[in-house]
Amino acid sequence: MHIGFIGLGKMGFNLVANLVRHGHTVVGYDINETLVEAVKAEGAQGVTTLQDLYNALPEKRVLWLMIPAGPLVDKVIDQLLAFMQPGDVVIDGGNSRYQDSIRRHAYLLEKGIGFLDCGTSGGISGALNGACTMVGGDPDVIEPLHGIFSDISVENGYLYTGPAGSGHFTKMVHNGIEYGMMQSIAEGFEVLEKSPFPFDFEAVARMWSNGSVIRGWLMELTENAFQKDARLDAIKGKMFSSGEGKWTLETALDLGVPTPVMALSLIMRYRSLQDDTFTGKVVAALRNEFGGHAVEKK
Amino acid sequence: MHIGFIGLGKMGFNLVANLVRHGHTVVGYDINETLVEAVKAEGAQGVTTLQDLYNALPEKRVLWLMIPAGPLVDKVIDQLLAFMQPGDVVIDGGNSRYQDSIRRHAYLLEKGIGFLDCGTSGGISGALNGACTMVGGDPDVIEPLHGIFSDISVENGYLYTGPAGSGHFTKMVHNGIEYGMMQSIAEGFEVLEKSPFPFDFEAVARMWSNGSVIRGWLMELTENAFQKDARLDAIKGKMFSSGEGKWTLETALDLGVPTPVMALSLIMRYRSLQDDTFTGKVVAALRNEFGGHAVEKK
Amino acid sequence: MHIGFIGLGKMGFNLVANLVRHGHTVVGYDINETLVEAVKAEGAQGVTTLQDLYNALPEKRVLWLMIPAGPLVDKVIDQLLAFMQPGDVVIDGGNSRYQDSIRRHAYLLEKGIGFLDCGTSGGISGALNGACTMVGGDPDVIEPLHGIFSDISVENGYLYTGPAGSGHFTKMVHNGIEYGMMQSIAEGFEVLEKSPFPFDFEAVARMWSNGSVIRGWLMELTENAFQKDARLDAIKGKMFSSGEGKWTLETALDLGVPTPVMALSLIMRYRSLQDDTFTGKVVAALRNEFGGHAVEKK
Amino acid sequence: MHIGFIGLGKMGFNLVANLVRHGHTVVGYDINETLVEAVKAEGAQGVTTLQDLYNALPEKRVLWLMIPAGPLVDKVIDQLLAFMQPGDVVIDGGNSRYQDSIRRHAYLLEKGIGFLDCGTSGGISGALNGACTMVGGDPDVIEPLHGIFSDISVENGYLYTGPAGSGHFTKMVHNGIEYGMMQSIAEGFEVLEKSPFPFDFEAVARMWSNGSVIRGWLMELTENAFQKDARLDAIKGKMFSSGEGKWTLETALDLGVPTPVMALSLIMRYRSLQDDTFTGKVVAALRNEFGGHAVEKK
Repeated sequence: MHIGFIGLGKMGFNLVANLVRHGHTVVGYDINETLVEAVKAEGAQGVTTLQDLYNALPEKRVLWLMIPAGPLVDKVIDQLLAFMQPGDVVIDGGNSRYQDSIRRHAYLLEKGIGFLDCGTSGGISGALNGACTMVGGDPDVIEPLHGIFSDISVENGYLYTGPAGSGHFTKMVHNGIEYGMMQSIAEGFEVLEKSPFPFDFEAVARMWSNGSVIRGWLMELTENAFQKDARLDAIKGKMFSSGEGKWTLETALDLGVPTPVMALSLIMRYRSLQDDTFTGKVVAALRNEFGGHAVEKK
Repeated sequence: MHIGFIGLGKMGFNLVANLVRHGHTVVGYDINETLVEAVKAEGAQGVTTLQDLYNALPEKRVLWLMIPAGPLVDKVIDQLLAFMQPGDVVIDGGNSRYQDSIRRHAYLLEKGIGFLDCGTSGGISGALNGACTMVGGDPDVIEPLHGIFSDISVENGYLYTGPAGSGHFTKMVHNGIEYGMMQSIAEGFEVLEKSPFPFDFEAVARMWSNGSVIRGWLMELTENAFQKDARLDAIKGKMFSSGEGKWTLETALDLGVPTPVMALSLIMRYRSLQDDTFTGKVVAALRNEFGGHAVEKK
Repeated sequence: MHIGFIGLGKMGFNLVANLVRHGHTVVGYDINETLVEAVKAEGAQGVTTLQDLYNALPEKRVLWLMIPAGPLVDKVIDQLLAFMQPGDVVIDGGNSRYQDSIRRHAYLLEKGIGFLDCGTSGGISGALNGACTMVGGDPDVIEPLHGIFSDISVENGYLYTGPAGSGHFTKMVHNGIEYGMMQSIAEGFEVLEKSPFPFDFEAVARMWSNGSVIRGWLMELTENAFQKDARLDAIKGKMFSSGEGKWTLETALDLGVPTPVMALSLIMRYRSLQDDTFTGKVVAALRNEFGGHAVEKK
Repeated sequence: MHIGFIGLGKMGFNLVANLVRHGHTVVGYDINETLVEAVKAEGAQGVTTLQDLYNALPEKRVLWLMIPAGPLVDKVIDQLLAFMQPGDVVIDGGNSRYQDSIRRHAYLLEKGIGFLDCGTSGGISGALNGACTMVGGDPDVIEPLHGIFSDISVENGYLYTGPAGSGHFTKMVHNGIEYGMMQSIAEGFEVLEKSPFPFDFEAVARMWSNGSVIRGWLMELTENAFQKDARLDAIKGKMFSSGEGKWTLETALDLGVPTPVMALSLIMRYRSLQDDTFTGKVVAALRNEFGGHAVEKK
C-alpha cells in the first residue's frame, strides 16, 4: 500500500524501513531534513513539506503520524486538514492519551476522515524487525488496512482492539504493566546488590532469561544492560517517565481500580528525581521534636 | 550419574523424568508408594525406604531433596545421617529459606558431607522439559555435579551462584520479582476489565506475548488462562502465597533496601484472603464519628 | 454581620447556629423546607427562594454556599447572578476542587463580585462549636470578613491562606493527610486485633488519647467508636470517599510529589468496596498455570 | 514507693524527676557518672554500681530499666541476677521487642522474679510532665505497682494491657501508627511546598492544630518545627528509624495483616537514606535498552 509517514524519529524511521521491506510504498516527512535524506536510503520517498507528502499519495490517503504526543498531534492534524478529503485516514501511532484519540476520532469523523489510534510496542528494535501493535477505530476504516499493521508486527503481535481510543488505552495499560515489571526486576537486583553474596548480575539475568518463570524480553534487556556495565556504575538512577504510567494510574483512580503496584512504580520514579525531600525534612524535624533524635544538618 | 531422589511430587516427579531422559540413573523415593510406582514407569528405580535409596547408590552418593521447605528438610537430613558418609552430597532443590540452607551447609560440612542449595524455577513444565536452576555451595562439591544441573536446565538456564545459601537467596529474589510482575500484569487486566471498552483478554494477552516490551512467559501463561476461562468467571481472586515473597520483603527490610512493589504485591495477597477488614471498619467508624458519613451495617 | 446561607445540611445547619450564637444575622435557605423551618428555631431567618434570600440582605451581600461540590455550585452561582450586584461576595464553604474555585473566582471577578474559597474542617461538632477554616481569595474581599471566619472557628483555627483557590487547596491537602492518618490508626488496630493478646480496643484508644505521641482528635474519635461497639461487629469495613483524597493524589502526581501513603490510603478504600478482584483472579490463575497451585472455585 | 532506676538518658532522667515529684524514693544508676550527679539535683539518690543500687532498696525491690533495647537488656538482667531475690520485680521501660519481653518474663519467672514490659510514649517532655504508659505482665506482679505507672502518666494515660509482652506489643503498634501519621503529615506539607501557592507552613500547622480533624500533638510539633525553621532549610530529609516500625511491619506480615501505609512509611525512610539507588539504575538502563531513552551519566 501507499503510506504517508510523518515523523522519522527513532521509532518512525524504523517503522518506515519495516514497511518498505514489506513492499509498501512509503513517503516520509520530517521537519528534520537530515532524517528525510536518511529515509530515502531505506527505499522510501522523502519530502520536506506536508503538502508534498499529501500530493505524493493516491486517493484514500493513509497518513501515519509518529510524533510526540500532545498538542503537536492536533497541530499537524489541523495542517493536514488544509488538504485532506473524505475517505482519507489518519493513523496516530504515537503514545497519545486515549481520551485525546477519542476526541480526534470524533473531530475527523465529522469531516469524513478516518482515524485509527495505534499503540506501538516493542521498542526501537521491534519497530524495525517486528513490532507489537494494538489499534482502535471504526471497523470499516481499519478493514482495508489490516495488512499494514500485520506486516509491521511479529506474528500474532497485531490486534484490532475495538472502538476509537481502545488502541491507545491498551498501550497505556501496557506501559503501566511495564512500569510495574521494570520496578519489580530492579528491586530484585537491588536486593541482590545489597546482599552478602558476590553476585554476577549479568550471569543472573542471563540465567533468569532462560527457563525461569520471570523470563521475558525485559530480563533479556537487563542482561544486555549488565553486559555493557557490570554494576551500572556509569549511570545515575534517575527514572524519568513520559506520561503513560501516570495516565494509567489516573485512569485506574477514575475507574476505582486498586493498582498499588502501578502507583508505587510511578511514585518511586518521581522520588528518584529528588535529591532530598521536604517530606523527609518534616519527618526528621518531628522525630527531633518529640524524641530529641538527632537530625542531619545540611 | 547416579542420583537418589527424595520427594516425587509435581516438581520432583518431572525432574526425575528429565534426569532419566538425560541418561542419569535415578533412584526415586517418596512416602506415597503410588508415586514410587509411577516413577518406575519413567525409567527410574523406585524404593520405599530411605535405607533402600541409600543402598542403591554408589559411593559419593548424590541425594536430591525435593520436599516441602521447613522442618521436614531437617528431619529427612537427620534420617539420612544414619547412613551418610563423608563425601556424600545433599542437594536441596526445594524452596528453603536461604538462612536455613547456610545453617544446613555448616551442619553437614562438619560431618564431611557436601550440601548444595538449588533454587529451581520454570514451573512444572520446566521441571520436565528444561528448568532454570540457581545453585549455591562449595566449589569443590559442585564441581563434579555441574553436569546434572546443566542437563536438567535449558541452555544458559543454570548458574552456579556462589557460596552456600546463594542459590536459595537467588530463588527467593526471583520469586519476589515474580510476585511483582504477576501483580503488575493482573492490575493491568483489571484496568482493562473496568474500562468502557469490550476487550477480549485472551486476544490482548496473545498480542502482548508477541513483540511487546512486556512479553515473556508470564504473559503467555496469562493468555493460556484466558483461553480456558475468558473472564475467569469460575475462580475466586484468592492469592495464596508460600513464603518466598514474604522472605524477600523481610530480607529487603533487613538490608535496608526499599522494595515498595514487592511489599505491596505481598500485602495485596494477604488482603485478598480477607472478606472484610478490621482496618476498613475502623476507618468507616471514624468517618461516621467526625462527619456523620453513613456506615454500611452488616 | 448579615449573611445569606445557602445549604442547611449537617455542616451548614450547625454553621448557621454557630454564626447566630456569635451575633450574626443569618438568613438561611435550603431546597428542603423542613430544614428552613428548623433553622428558624436556631434564631436565623428562613427563606424558601434564592430571590427572598437575596432581598433580605443589605448591600454588599455575603452569600455563603454550603452545598455539595461539583456542578451544583456553578448552577447556584448562575442563579444568584440573576440578582447579584458588584460588591457582593460569594463564599464557597464546601469541599470544592481548588481548580474550580480558581475558575469561579475569575468568573465572578469579571462581574465585580468577590469570591472566597473556604475549606471547613472539624466535622459536624466543630461546625457548631468551633470549626477550623482555611480561606483563600483576594485580600480586599476578605478584609471586611475576617470576623466571620474567626468567630466560627476555635482560637487560632482560622487562616487566610492566600490567593483564590488556596483555601480549598489547603483543605484538600488536609483531607489527604486525614486519609493517611485514619488508615495508619486503622492498620494499627487491625494488628492489635489479629495479635495473640486480648486487647480492649476502647481502653487502648483512651490510653493513646492521653499523653502519647499519637494523641489527637482522631484517636479520641476512635475511642468513641469502640465505646459504642467494642469490636465494631455491627458494621462493614466499606471505606467510601468523597473526592478530596483522590484530588490530593492527582495533584501530587501533577506536581511530581511522591505521596505513597496518601496513594495507598486511597487505593485501600477502593479495594474495600470490592468483594473480589479481577487482579486476584489473574494472579490465582497464573499461579495455577505455572505451579499447579490450587485455585479456589466460586 | 522505692524504685531503683537504671539508665538516666533523655527519657530515664525525666522519668526519675517525674517519679520524685510524685513522692517516690528513687535511686538512680547510669554508667555515665555525670548523669548520676545530675539526678541527685533532682532529688534522687545516685549510685555508681548496680550492687549499690540494689543494696539501697528495701525488699521486694523494683528495678526499672530505661536502656537501649537489645542485648544490653539481657546483659543488665544477668548482672542483676547476681543479687536479685524472689519477689523482686524488673520493669523494662524501653522499646524492647515484644518477643524478647515474653522470653525475659519466662526467664525471670523461673527464678521467682517478676517482669513487667512497659511501653512509654509521650516523648521527652511527656516523660517529665506526664507520660503515656502501656504495661504488660502478670496481674499479681503489677497489682502493687499500679500507682507508679499512674503517677508518671497523664490522667487516663496508663493502661495495664494484659499478659507479658503485651505492653511492648502495644508500644510497637503505637510506633507503627506514629510512622504512618508522620509520613501522612509530611507528604501533605510537601504537596503544599510544591504547590503554586506561597504557604506559610507554620501558620498552616497552627491552624490545623486548632479545630481541624487532623489536630493532635504531632501537628503541634509540626508547628513548633516550622516556628524554628520556616522552611526546614537547615536540615536534611534523612529519616532514621530505630526498629519499632520494622517490627510492626514484620509482625503484621507474620499475622497476615495488610498494612500498606505502615509498610510504605518504613520503606520511604529507608529510601531517604540513599542518595542514589540501584533500583533506579536498573530502570534507567532498561528504558535506555528498549526505547533509547537518555540516561543521566554520573
